[in-house]
Amino acid sequence: MPTDDADDAGDSSAAPTDAQQACFEAGIKFGSLYHQFAGTPISLESADSLARAMEEAIENQPHCTDVTVNVRTDVLEAALEGGAAEYTELTGRFLEVEIDVAYEGVEVVTRMAMEDGYPLMRLESVRR
Amino acid sequence: MPTDDADDAGDSSAAPTDAQQACFEAGIKFGSLYHQFAGTPISLESADSLARAMEEAIENQPHCTDVTVNVRTDVLEAALEGGAAEYTELTGRFLEVEIDVAYEGVEVVTRMAMEDGYPLMRLESVRR
Amino acid sequence: MPTDDADDAGDSSAAPTDAQQACFEAGIKFGSLYHQFAGTPISLESADSLARAMEEAIENQPHCTDVTVNVRTDVLEAALEGGAAEYTELTGRFLEVEIDVAYEGVEVVTRMAMEDGYPLMRLESVRR
Amino acid sequence: MPTDDADDAGDSSAAPTDAQQACFEAGIKFGSLYHQFAGTPISLESADSLARAMEEAIENQPHCTDVTVNVRTDVLEAALEGGAAEYTELTGRFLEVEIDVAYEGVEVVTRMAMEDGYPLMRLESVRR
Repeated sequence: MPTDDADDAGDSSAAPTDAQQACFEAGIKFGSLYHQFAGTPISLESADSLARAMEEAIENQPHCTDVTVNVRTDVLEAALEGGAAEYTELTGRFLEVEIDVAYEGVEVVTRMAMEDGYPLMRLESVRR
Repeated sequence: MPTDDADDAGDSSAAPTDAQQACFEAGIKFGSLYHQFAGTPISLESADSLARAMEEAIENQPHCTDVTVNVRTDVLEAALEGGAAEYTELTGRFLEVEIDVAYEGVEVVTRMAMEDGYPLMRLESVRR
Repeated sequence: MPTDDADDAGDSSAAPTDAQQACFEAGIKFGSLYHQFAGTPISLESADSLARAMEEAIENQPHCTDVTVNVRTDVLEAALEGGAAEYTELTGRFLEVEIDVAYEGVEVVTRMAMEDGYPLMRLESVRR
Repeated sequence: MPTDDADDAGDSSAAPTDAQQACFEAGIKFGSLYHQFAGTPISLESADSLARAMEEAIENQPHCTDVTVNVRTDVLEAALEGGAAEYTELTGRFLEVEIDVAYEGVEVVTRMAMEDGYPLMRLESVRR
């Protein structure tokens, strides 16, 4: 039986610990947020309402304590300058996201930001 | 060559008229709105921000003059009462939507509402 | 009352004709296809199964007689060459799509292809 | 510095271990799969192609070794019997999903199945 004091590395027991569950939950939120909203038409004018809706929608999910979505307005503006349209589709390069999860006393902080041209979702910290 | 005065019923010419183009554009907006946002986690608290984001996102699309999204709070409340969670997934039965399109002088009004248990998207009027 | 012989241009009557309804239906299918699947992880290996699923999913919708989705493999290959990952997200520039709709004897052919860097959805023909 | 031997429960160090990272990655895949495809039109005829596309799409994602999607045909059939249409929208009650992830020697098995009327995503095992 896993306990909070048990080795959580996965070598001695297959049953997940609370910290691992918390990380799994955090991952679910990130995948949900990204794939629910990727492709949404976005402009400088509509960026704010979309960011708020993304935050509040994902905060509904279990164990999710806080979601912060910032639209990188400079990147969005640059993307729109070259084009014929006044909007584009939401994709990871326009976003900075933090998602916090709490599960059975374990607090997990996760972030998405661009790295080498890819939106990278990272597990920042896992604390009890 | 199609003109605004031509018979638009499709029997004499295959080339679409402005009114038909306007109706096609209105359909695109409806399909976009529905399939972009269906499945989004929604609660009584987050319903407003989602409705605003849906409106502003789709209003970005070409020829779209107005989008109004009302969440049917009573239906949402009823759906949440029976369940174990405080949120559910967005689907058509929680929504009333009006989308207006203007294309080359033709104004199209479209609506989605429940009919026989299905969310029906309807072309309400096509006016010049 | 609109009839098939009536002027369909929208100036004499607000009630939509069958041809206009058919165009509205065709638009719904296009918006649905695009916004349901935009953002899906796609690679050269998975392109075929995604294209088939898109076709069969949208063919379920009312009045939809045929959907053909071609993945532009050369464009996808070029997009993957520069990057660090072996997959990317589905977006319009990787697609050529034809959607056919039949409504009350009116046949509508619609296509999506790139134009000036944007995926343009076009009403090709409306025939009785 | 976290090592594979370190206590992974999150109390002594905030830096995530490999097992926690593996669980985070598994969660991302599950959230992605669900929110990318929820809402897709599905019938008994199109269920197979959708299931295959879901598997292959998510298998593209980093560290994902296997995805198995089974459509619960009996539940889908029952849902379609009562209705006027021959298709419905994909939601969790029609699905059984297993997603396997391998990250730095840690293997994670996750499953989604219905529990009390909700599609529950579960971390099944975490092994080194």
